[in-house]
Amino acid sequence: MRIVKTIKEMREVSRWYRGEGKVMGLVPTMGALHDGHLSLVRRAKEQNDRTIVSIFVNPEQFGPSEDFNTYPRDTDADLEKLSGLQADVVFMPEAREVYPEGFSTLIEMGGIGQVLCGASRPGHFNGVATVVAKLFNIVIPRRSYFGQKDFQQTVIIQKFVRDLNFDTEVIVCPIVREPDGLAMSSRNAYLNEEERKAAVILHKALQLGEELIHSRRIDDASKVKKEMIALIKKEPLAKLDYIDIVDPHNLDPVKRVIFAAAICLAVNIGKTRLIDNIIVERR
Amino acid sequence: MRIVKTIKEMREVSRWYRGEGKVMGLVPTMGALHDGHLSLVRRAKEQNDRTIVSIFVNPEQFGPSEDFNTYPRDTDADLEKLSGLQADVVFMPEAREVYPEGFSTLIEMGGIGQVLCGASRPGHFNGVATVVAKLFNIVIPRRSYFGQKDFQQTVIIQKFVRDLNFDTEVIVCPIVREPDGLAMSSRNAYLNEEERKAAVILHKALQLGEELIHSRRIDDASKVKKEMIALIKKEPLAKLDYIDIVDPHNLDPVKRVIFAAAICLAVNIGKTRLIDNIIVERR
Repeated sequence: MRIVKTIKEMREVSRWYRGEGKVMGLVPTMGALHDGHLSLVRRAKEQNDRTIVSIFVNPEQFGPSEDFNTYPRDTDADLEKLSGLQADVVFMPEAREVYPEGFSTLIEMGGIGQVLCGASRPGHFNGVATVVAKLFNIVIPRRSYFGQKDFQQTVIIQKFVRDLNFDTEVIVCPIVREPDGLAMSSRNAYLNEEERKAAVILHKALQLGEELIHSRRIDDASKVKKEMIALIKKEPLAKLDYIDIVDPHNLDPVKRVIFAAAICLAVNIGKTRLIDNIIVERR
Repeated sequence: MRIVKTIKEMREVSRWYRGEGKVMGLVPTMGALHDGHLSLVRRAKEQNDRTIVSIFVNPEQFGPSEDFNTYPRDTDADLEKLSGLQADVVFMPEAREVYPEGFSTLIEMGGIGQVLCGASRPGHFNGVATVVAKLFNIVIPRRSYFGQKDFQQTVIIQKFVRDLNFDTEVIVCPIVREPDGLAMSSRNAYLNEEERKAAVILHKALQLGEELIHSRRIDDASKVKKEMIALIKKEPLAKLDYIDIVDPHNLDPVKRVIFAAAICLAVNIGKTRLIDNIIVERR
């Protein structure tokens, strides 16, 4: 497994692979790898000749009052996991390599980046789109892999790939959950024992929403939200940030669930902000 | 010479060339080709295995009160010129191919796109950057060619290529001028006989600026500007939009010309807005 720290070397490796006719899959991560990330790496290994995993905690996607400094970092453990899966290249540049002095260009996503998590995190998705576009340009991967846990992120990435004609296939992999249903997230490491138990409320609320739509055939999004909110309120450690039922393609809010919808939520458990989502189809 | 109208076919042609190990040069244009454009095509032919010329009048870079509808279009003449130079591919997509319904992502250039021409043309350079990024992603050219006549544009393109890590070498070619000094531009076609004569004032003002800095060793930018403005005022058909003396790398205004500077101006001749520039170095 090759560890690459500069853009120049990453470009050279990538050009070499392309010259050899090797198809590349890219898995962009911020490290602190869990089984969710590893499922992306496994999928990339299956579908490509070479798998490149990037580890970069991207300062441009954190707001000034957010957890950039405390975001979990564990490079040794990450490299061991990736080596175990036989990733071919780990690209882990320094921040000053990615954002040299004078950097100022941004990919501006407009409205789709300002709803859901974008409402609580202004600029976040422009930062995500910009760093992912940079990675696409450095690696030029045939395929790239993202987890559905960050659902809005996957919609944003598919949108700018389409709008700006990036030549990569964006592959979204299912959420990987702990046995009790909590979606895997590097930020779960912030939770103490009590909070960890409380955090299951996100998945429980989504399950309730799904049940209301599927089994009880309620199509009124506001009714579904209301019952979900009532459930979350029963958990004293939980503080709701948002819960929205949206069109999975463009994130527009839906009033009635006619065919398919994404239920997305963000909940603060103590000081830790967690997100989760589920795609429901009316059968 | 192959004429390509869809993004899908352009990608296929480009992949084929890459697969064959052919190096591609891209010359993005808005058509109405003059000797300035043709000098870019010749340079691309010299430096690459395959030369792709795009012709696309980009609606996203025109303001609502600008000349998108009347911008000169002459496809037959363009194709004849390009065929004469043995360009390999002409990529000429329709607007709805480039901007399908729902398109909304923009490359946001920030301050560098808001000075000089950007002050009179809000959003113009975000539109330029966005369409050029799309062309880069569709063609993936090793080299791309732009004329120095649109000086700010060349700085903007070099900036987003660097900031977003596009893997193309941006090559800026010298301004091609008419015998009397007027910089070649598709918009010169708008000028009537009288205006055509008056239009030489742009180049005359730049020559004066260069002479003041070079021969008369004046380094005070405001003095240089003042004398240039006085000269332009003597031409009754000319109305100055702006004249600025800037750092050629970042377009910051310079107060004193210590080493190098770009003198950039825009002048309305009748209803036609023309631009020109010169890079001066103190010797």
